[in-house]
Amino acid sequence: MLKVIAEDFIKNEYLEVVAPMYAELVAATKKEPGCVEYNLFVDEDDETHFIFIEEWINHQALDAHCASEHFTRLVPLINQYQYKEGTALLMKSF
Amino acid sequence: MLKVIAEDFIKNEYLEVVAPMYAELVAATKKEPGCVEYNLFVDEDDETHFIFIEEWINHQALDAHCASEHFTRLVPLINQYQYKEGTALLMKSF
Repeated sequence: MLKVIAEDFIKNEYLEVVAPMYAELVAATKKEPGCVEYNLFVDEDDETHFIFIEEWINHQALDAHCASEHFTRLVPLINQYQYKEGTALLMKSF
Repeated sequence: MLKVIAEDFIKNEYLEVVAPMYAELVAATKKEPGCVEYNLFVDEDDETHFIFIEEWINHQALDAHCASEHFTRLVPLINQYQYKEGTALLMKSF
């Protein structure tokens, strides 16, 4: 099991532009065989701060995700609208 | 629904001291009526970095958690061993 928290920081004026891309990314990712959980959240105090909470069966599943058609197409498009670099935190169970 | 990510940073020499306290906190919290999810993870790259991923039915449930006997007893004990302040991020669904 591999748990991941990934965070994005999107310029306020582009929130409506990225919303459908995020929706497409989440929908396509949930279909991946190695994906256990892939949900997107928004910081209650900051609408520009997006947080993915993910769970993968293993590291290979995450690697496959990062190489997937939808990821390699959508993430660069989304990242155009960031005001600062996204982060990713990989975790194991306590 | 209220999603929470809470992070702790524990001095390396006290990891074994806090482990049973974390285990007790997680076990007791999972029994709380408003708790949907309450799991503890460890940063793959940093054993001193602990991450709670939580889900509560609403803000009142989180407030009740923070006022619970186990939280008010254990969290101050755990916090003695922090090398920097913990963080908490409250989120809503995308």
